[in-house]
Amino acid sequence: MKVAVLGYGVVGVGVYEMLGRAEGLEQGPVLVRPGKADAPFKVTSIEEIVSDPTVGAVAEVMGGVEPAFTYAAAALQAGKHFVTSNKALVAARGIELKALAEEHGAAFLFSAACGGGVPFLHNLSLARESDRIRSLGGILNGTTNYMLDAMQRLDMDYAQALADAQRLGYAEADPTADVSGLDALRKIMLACAVAYDRLPTEGLLNEGIENMTAADAAHMKSRGYTCRLLARGGLNGDGSVYAFVEPVLFREGVPECSVLENYNMAKYEGACSGSIVLMGQGAGRWPTASAVLRDLNSVLLGHRAMLRPACCRVAADNGALEQLYYVRLPARFAERFAAESAEPDGDTVRLVTKPLSPAAMHELAGEIRAQGGELFFAAIGG
Amino acid sequence: MKVAVLGYGVVGVGVYEMLGRAEGLEQGPVLVRPGKADAPFKVTSIEEIVSDPTVGAVAEVMGGVEPAFTYAAAALQAGKHFVTSNKALVAARGIELKALAEEHGAAFLFSAACGGGVPFLHNLSLARESDRIRSLGGILNGTTNYMLDAMQRLDMDYAQALADAQRLGYAEADPTADVSGLDALRKIMLACAVAYDRLPTEGLLNEGIENMTAADAAHMKSRGYTCRLLARGGLNGDGSVYAFVEPVLFREGVPECSVLENYNMAKYEGACSGSIVLMGQGAGRWPTASAVLRDLNSVLLGHRAMLRPACCRVAADNGALEQLYYVRLPARFAERFAAESAEPDGDTVRLVTKPLSPAAMHELAGEIRAQGGELFFAAIGG
Repeated sequence: MKVAVLGYGVVGVGVYEMLGRAEGLEQGPVLVRPGKADAPFKVTSIEEIVSDPTVGAVAEVMGGVEPAFTYAAAALQAGKHFVTSNKALVAARGIELKALAEEHGAAFLFSAACGGGVPFLHNLSLARESDRIRSLGGILNGTTNYMLDAMQRLDMDYAQALADAQRLGYAEADPTADVSGLDALRKIMLACAVAYDRLPTEGLLNEGIENMTAADAAHMKSRGYTCRLLARGGLNGDGSVYAFVEPVLFREGVPECSVLENYNMAKYEGACSGSIVLMGQGAGRWPTASAVLRDLNSVLLGHRAMLRPACCRVAADNGALEQLYYVRLPARFAERFAAESAEPDGDTVRLVTKPLSPAAMHELAGEIRAQGGELFFAAIGG
Repeated sequence: MKVAVLGYGVVGVGVYEMLGRAEGLEQGPVLVRPGKADAPFKVTSIEEIVSDPTVGAVAEVMGGVEPAFTYAAAALQAGKHFVTSNKALVAARGIELKALAEEHGAAFLFSAACGGGVPFLHNLSLARESDRIRSLGGILNGTTNYMLDAMQRLDMDYAQALADAQRLGYAEADPTADVSGLDALRKIMLACAVAYDRLPTEGLLNEGIENMTAADAAHMKSRGYTCRLLARGGLNGDGSVYAFVEPVLFREGVPECSVLENYNMAKYEGACSGSIVLMGQGAGRWPTASAVLRDLNSVLLGHRAMLRPACCRVAADNGALEQLYYVRLPARFAERFAAESAEPDGDTVRLVTKPLSPAAMHELAGEIRAQGGELFFAAIGG
């Protein structure tokens, strides 16, 4: 199968090179936007690709919703299989792309969009066919994991950890999507769509790591906790879907604590399989390219869809699940929380709340911040 | 697709029940040996299954090489897809079954034979299509992991840990295949066959955990090490395959240390993907049944083979790789090793060897034991 590649950046070069070595797959044209780097078999319009009868599949690794969506739609309408690493695209327009793929008998797979090299969505997609997925999630953003690890294991402060991540190419010049949890949120949206036939697009919550200080890191460490940024999704008792991102504290010895540097960890809990954990490189040229190639090999085997016909947009309900939270905030706001325990430290207090839903916790945090209160919080997990 | 089930024990009941709930799959006849428990749609001869034109696939969960091989061959010859959880069968007769499957256009998949619920072989099979697998392995025996964890974390001695594992149903009345490493060895043989088209059947090494004492566990712990029974396979520089099982010591913080109780962890190192780690329940009714069902869903998608046409039997070469070993032995045998360091303790000495191949280490251990020397050893890993 000849594969056209859309985008020839970090991942595109990897996909193109791997295609040259893969059995059953062949290097096709590479779409490069005018003014961008040169590429072998370079074309500059999507029409040249969709009108080429020798192209069987299109691999998109450009990123961004547009023009990626327009290109994807054109490829699927021409009956080309479509594989992508673009989480923003699938989170925003996955339902439309799924419908186009069905209509034209083409495959639409996007393993590389969640977890990079970690084969999470592929396995989730297969597992859900015969098992009931109780919950899912994990450490799905390598940039923030690198920073959290540096702050906790190497005692860096936030600014140092961010600068270090940028120097190593793990963080963008504008790191907002990573540090705010938005990137991880998009990934958990995709995982919910695969597991539950529902893509949550409203009522979502994301608390990132921007509010964590070196003092927070040291205090959590002194209490035996390791903090990770976790994306979580699952089914509430009434069948609605929850989906949110927030820092979570773990006791040493659980797999989450052994996820160091920019590694990712994804997890699902099947009613039959039990807990299945997958770890690996969540980003980078070769890991992400290897995930794109795995999807293309899946297409060769006959795999067509990660999103089933019934999949639709829904609002998430993050008000049902309850958990304890660790909160650091100005002492004057402490009374806003029903606390299990509280530890004053000058004008600041560190407390552990009584059980609280993510919806309630994130809302309270928003209110306190709106009133000028600086606050860090993390759920108490594992 | 209607699926016949061979065997109605712990796993068979799970497979049969899951078939009743899975989309695209249907419960077929269950083969139960005369005198064995009753089952729905019970038949007592394989002929009834292979001559039934409504049966599309056969799932074998009986265990043992015979009559499983005879039944498998009959099913494949009748063009039925064949899925199994039986590692002894695939290790002994996988090459013949692969040839029969090809000849008759049927699928032959065996994910459940290695890692139970952990989707290791499926992912390895997909990854190797586009990536080069540098090495593979992991904690593939839940019984011994349970025992090692109990000895190190709960300070049990070997006999207590074994009794506990038996009481919980993790260990058989005769635990030899588990504690000797043979069970894990069979699993790594299958993984090598999937990744490298070569099923190693000679030159294999397995050192189990039978020689580990409470004093060994305490000493390793005092040095900051956690011991796990690891199965490992990979390619030597000359292209030959290595495959062996032995205890390995890890420093805290690596994923191996977070594999507790009877959990399994499998790992492969792809040239492009990097290290991919998978963890989950390695045995038990529902995890193993869920792996059988995943394979059946893969068959529906079009997945036909985990062993490629070129796959053949080879001898392993465990003489090339070199590593340090931790050895506890009677002081009178200490001079047999070139040691980095040695710590005498009465008539016993605990030493760390200079680099040594698994072939050399296992051979020396055999010689010393033949001369009446009690010895425990573990490679120093991660």
